[in-house]
Amino acid sequence: MATPEQPPDRPESPRRPPDGLRLQPEDLRSWRLFGRTSMRTFNQRSRMAQLGLAQPDYVGKPIIAIINTWSDINPCHMHFKARVEEVKRGVWQAGGVPMEMPAMSLAEAFQKPSPLLYRNLLATETEELLRSYPADGAVLMGGCDKTTPGLIMGATSMGLPMIFMPAGPMLRGNAGGKTLGSGTDLFKGWAEVRAGTMNEEAWGDVLSGIARSPGTCMTMGTASTMTSATEALGLTLPGASSIPAPDSRHAQMATATGQRIVEMVWQDLRPSKVLTADAFDNAVVTVLALGGSTNALVHLIAMARRAGVDLTLDRFDQLAALTPLTANLRPAGSNNGGD
Amino acid sequence: MATPEQPPDRPESPRRPPDGLRLQPEDLRSWRLFGRTSMRTFNQRSRMAQLGLAQPDYVGKPIIAIINTWSDINPCHMHFKARVEEVKRGVWQAGGVPMEMPAMSLAEAFQKPSPLLYRNLLATETEELLRSYPADGAVLMGGCDKTTPGLIMGATSMGLPMIFMPAGPMLRGNAGGKTLGSGTDLFKGWAEVRAGTMNEEAWGDVLSGIARSPGTCMTMGTASTMTSATEALGLTLPGASSIPAPDSRHAQMATATGQRIVEMVWQDLRPSKVLTADAFDNAVVTVLALGGSTNALVHLIAMARRAGVDLTLDRFDQLAALTPLTANLRPAGSNNGGD
Amino acid sequence: MATPEQPPDRPESPRRPPDGLRLQPEDLRSWRLFGRTSMRTFNQRSRMAQLGLAQPDYVGKPIIAIINTWSDINPCHMHFKARVEEVKRGVWQAGGVPMEMPAMSLAEAFQKPSPLLYRNLLATETEELLRSYPADGAVLMGGCDKTTPGLIMGATSMGLPMIFMPAGPMLRGNAGGKTLGSGTDLFKGWAEVRAGTMNEEAWGDVLSGIARSPGTCMTMGTASTMTSATEALGLTLPGASSIPAPDSRHAQMATATGQRIVEMVWQDLRPSKVLTADAFDNAVVTVLALGGSTNALVHLIAMARRAGVDLTLDRFDQLAALTPLTANLRPAGSNNGGD
Amino acid sequence: MATPEQPPDRPESPRRPPDGLRLQPEDLRSWRLFGRTSMRTFNQRSRMAQLGLAQPDYVGKPIIAIINTWSDINPCHMHFKARVEEVKRGVWQAGGVPMEMPAMSLAEAFQKPSPLLYRNLLATETEELLRSYPADGAVLMGGCDKTTPGLIMGATSMGLPMIFMPAGPMLRGNAGGKTLGSGTDLFKGWAEVRAGTMNEEAWGDVLSGIARSPGTCMTMGTASTMTSATEALGLTLPGASSIPAPDSRHAQMATATGQRIVEMVWQDLRPSKVLTADAFDNAVVTVLALGGSTNALVHLIAMARRAGVDLTLDRFDQLAALTPLTANLRPAGSNNGGD
Repeated sequence: MATPEQPPDRPESPRRPPDGLRLQPEDLRSWRLFGRTSMRTFNQRSRMAQLGLAQPDYVGKPIIAIINTWSDINPCHMHFKARVEEVKRGVWQAGGVPMEMPAMSLAEAFQKPSPLLYRNLLATETEELLRSYPADGAVLMGGCDKTTPGLIMGATSMGLPMIFMPAGPMLRGNAGGKTLGSGTDLFKGWAEVRAGTMNEEAWGDVLSGIARSPGTCMTMGTASTMTSATEALGLTLPGASSIPAPDSRHAQMATATGQRIVEMVWQDLRPSKVLTADAFDNAVVTVLALGGSTNALVHLIAMARRAGVDLTLDRFDQLAALTPLTANLRPAGSNNGGD
Repeated sequence: MATPEQPPDRPESPRRPPDGLRLQPEDLRSWRLFGRTSMRTFNQRSRMAQLGLAQPDYVGKPIIAIINTWSDINPCHMHFKARVEEVKRGVWQAGGVPMEMPAMSLAEAFQKPSPLLYRNLLATETEELLRSYPADGAVLMGGCDKTTPGLIMGATSMGLPMIFMPAGPMLRGNAGGKTLGSGTDLFKGWAEVRAGTMNEEAWGDVLSGIARSPGTCMTMGTASTMTSATEALGLTLPGASSIPAPDSRHAQMATATGQRIVEMVWQDLRPSKVLTADAFDNAVVTVLALGGSTNALVHLIAMARRAGVDLTLDRFDQLAALTPLTANLRPAGSNNGGD
Repeated sequence: MATPEQPPDRPESPRRPPDGLRLQPEDLRSWRLFGRTSMRTFNQRSRMAQLGLAQPDYVGKPIIAIINTWSDINPCHMHFKARVEEVKRGVWQAGGVPMEMPAMSLAEAFQKPSPLLYRNLLATETEELLRSYPADGAVLMGGCDKTTPGLIMGATSMGLPMIFMPAGPMLRGNAGGKTLGSGTDLFKGWAEVRAGTMNEEAWGDVLSGIARSPGTCMTMGTASTMTSATEALGLTLPGASSIPAPDSRHAQMATATGQRIVEMVWQDLRPSKVLTADAFDNAVVTVLALGGSTNALVHLIAMARRAGVDLTLDRFDQLAALTPLTANLRPAGSNNGGD
Repeated sequence: MATPEQPPDRPESPRRPPDGLRLQPEDLRSWRLFGRTSMRTFNQRSRMAQLGLAQPDYVGKPIIAIINTWSDINPCHMHFKARVEEVKRGVWQAGGVPMEMPAMSLAEAFQKPSPLLYRNLLATETEELLRSYPADGAVLMGGCDKTTPGLIMGATSMGLPMIFMPAGPMLRGNAGGKTLGSGTDLFKGWAEVRAGTMNEEAWGDVLSGIARSPGTCMTMGTASTMTSATEALGLTLPGASSIPAPDSRHAQMATATGQRIVEMVWQDLRPSKVLTADAFDNAVVTVLALGGSTNALVHLIAMARRAGVDLTLDRFDQLAALTPLTANLRPAGSNNGGD
């Protein structure tokens, strides 16, 4: 969305230090709103006071927007109500100021006809939240299929230092003593019910056991494919994407993510420094090696374009010729995550 | 998960009973997703189970989407974290199922260059949240200037039974033993500071006392003008718009709002039955009688068009000729709200 | 505010219907405070209004005290922040009024020299919370070792209808591809570290993997022993005690628990009808069959005394002679829970 | 409660630096649990990991116990659900680790026959929570009549650095255009109702308007008397006790309280350094000058004894002879707080 002929007080275009140097407080984008003296800054201060914040609590400190796609109707992101507090404590510890800003949640299971229609709306919302508010950096909380590319596309276009906190897979399913995988075992079970080879009770066990904790599908479907690719892009903490959602190490990762973004702001580590052509090659190779979802093609290409990287289908082909399938994961293979 | 060409399973166009009769459970829009038997409905059920809900908890019950514009950076809506729980308990009490769905928060004080640019984005998000998810009715939680028209425009376009829960004004300000009004007294104080007739300390008291609780501006600015007009339109509970945000009666109103929307769903009380040309006349007269903000023109006309009502500037003129100014409220007059 | 000599207004000793009949609203213990007309009841009503509750929201409805032993420092009960909301929605759905009342949390891992010293303090607090407030029934939220007997002892002494919501076991641990059990594998690992047969890194994996989600120890230690015995006593929903803490079925159980207690109040199903000598025999047999912790002797005897049941060590002996060990669970056997 | 013959690992009696010097991390009481190497400390670490905390997040940092007397049934402390988060962010900002530990809530309006019976139980609970857990300092959150002395008595006996966060008065009441004061105007109104000089509707307005926000009584009753005395004792931030509960400056005070306690821990500023005979004289003079509640005698004497100060009724007499009544506050005078 265009913001033409900006008045002198707008929060854009902060001073930026030469590479390798750290930002100073007055280089922060938020400094324009909070660090200077004018009637407008006084209005902001009176409103920060209304929020319960005194000037020493936020002036000259990185304001971290936490774009949270929690919703009561998104089972993949249920734990974000706890996780967002864990991200916040990391931001406070590191000397930043967390500001949670909810954005549209895209829940694969419930949104009709398809959440794919809303990926770009989430991207626009993310970009505009970051642009219009005095944010210095961003934590993106997502994981359910289209939320990952949607959040990253928007934040890339805006260009602030950002880090992604993946939702993590739900626990692997179970019923009748057997392990169940998201999607696959539902299709299979339903076929058996119709064939008369599975009874009501066994089917009921499948329904209550196949999605049995917060988190995204624990097979290598779209969600895990995209969060793995995002880790390969360098947008998450190392190892973040494979921690099960309800695991305590996921909570630790949330706090570490909050700590990390504050440091990234001081280092002015913007997406343009991270999302290089090489990074996208890494993401593609990761998807190929894991036997990930073909939806990755659609999303990675869209993400690359936001970063100004010319990722093509041909490049997928070239890298596919060089990359062995190294993981044996459902639905392509036989193992589940979520453990 | 692919969802190719499945018109019969789409959640749109439920059966509707003749006027005056109440809906039956199988008439609910959500019935298509939850009440029938197919592989798809089984997937929804397994995901509702993942959310912690058993079938008797939600099948055949009105699903109430609560569109919440809370954000850490919106001081007008800080209390929505408590209020949304109070709305939810009302929905549960009345036999519905509340589903909180956050949407973009538009905070007048912090969003640059102006939240006006984002009113229609919020409208789109509201409309699409309600359309894409299996909602039977909606509670809209807003109040800060552009959030009111944004939420209502979107929900009107979607056409589900809906009710608005206004944020309510903040407490009237105070400093040095005097009452302060939002906006006006900031401008005035800043002029005095520059003229040298107000010292640092007194100015500091103004800054910390002028916006001293959650809630919207307590003068008859855009926020209170639009929520008053919304009440006149018939979209809130009677009296809802003038309760101060931190008042316990605001919490009671939140619960009653949750109770009311469930009944509205059973009555199939859609916006088309509420938002008539007469209702918009009432809204215009209310704004005129209160000496409300001229921004009401922009927003009421946009809202009317969503409802298919041809509200014109001429109509404002006609009604202005008939309507006395009956309230003496700042900034046009001398009294503050928020008490 | 003084409350001199007012026996008629005390909340004790409500009318009770003959067995088999259901209570009427005016039979509720809370009716004395909320249903009658006096200056005192008006004071209560003005305070309920302060809480955001209107008279139709609570008068003549069962007030359900939810005794919650959540604390930031109790890892077994971390999920109670979410669970208590899930209990509440069940209470609202069923027509009751939930009132969360926190009580002292006893965290086995952190409380020194031992939480055993505080079991009876928790019992006293539970009993007095229920006695002094206008509660009609109680949900007890516990699970970490001494919290289970503490809560139940207090609530038994008070004698209101009550139900226990067990925390559930944490996920079974893992490190280096092996399953870890609470306690046992820590002792074992530490011995190996001292013997020099386990290196730093492997030990680090044990430490981060042995307690990796909210919930109580997943071996048949004191926590699982006591919650299993509590289920055998008839104080939980059937099957409640073996659901892992982060499992979505645990959330469903929480809601069902909230629904159930409201019905128990109308049935006047007090502990004296549940906690019979036979019920305690069932509990003892359950502990014996599971190979449970010997701490059960200490706690079950104390619990029985509160219920007026003369459970003796001899009775344990008699039942032990008749009860085969049917489960193969750590630490006595080889299997873990938490799956 | 006695804790005889402590094992070497117990958290008591840390090293203390000479006066004027600051503590070092290894001087912290929590160091014994978290800073040393033993099987027991490894168990604590695995449990802190379970809580989502990594070692650098808490080892060598002040652990701040936040004793929170929030409850769903205490209208004076409703805002503690928000405030406790605001205290926590202050603790994180200052480099401490907040640990919320709920304790029994004493709600004047609802607890029968009188919360006075439970003051000492709260004191015991407070003392034992601080003693048994690895706390280095404490924030006490209270305000409703007996909670203030209860919390302080317990924390004084334990002897850790502590600070009190007063709930603050509710907003002054209103009905029919008149200001209402807690208590007084209820008694008065009820008398009028019985005399037939106040009708149903006016009486209903009094009931809904007399207690219209979270917070304690806004007249100089027991609650405000005790929090004012506590401020005079030096146990709150300056000015803390007179900020209305829903005011944004109350939220700011909560954060500043969290920041302050961390510094107090490093300074080893224990109650014995604060609660001197002079401090109690200040508290008594404050009560006398404000025309405070006579309940202060009961509570201040009990508090003084915990601090080893011999405060007597004679001392009240002596100070009364020297202290003019300087405030004109209800019920003794004519002004209300809560503005």
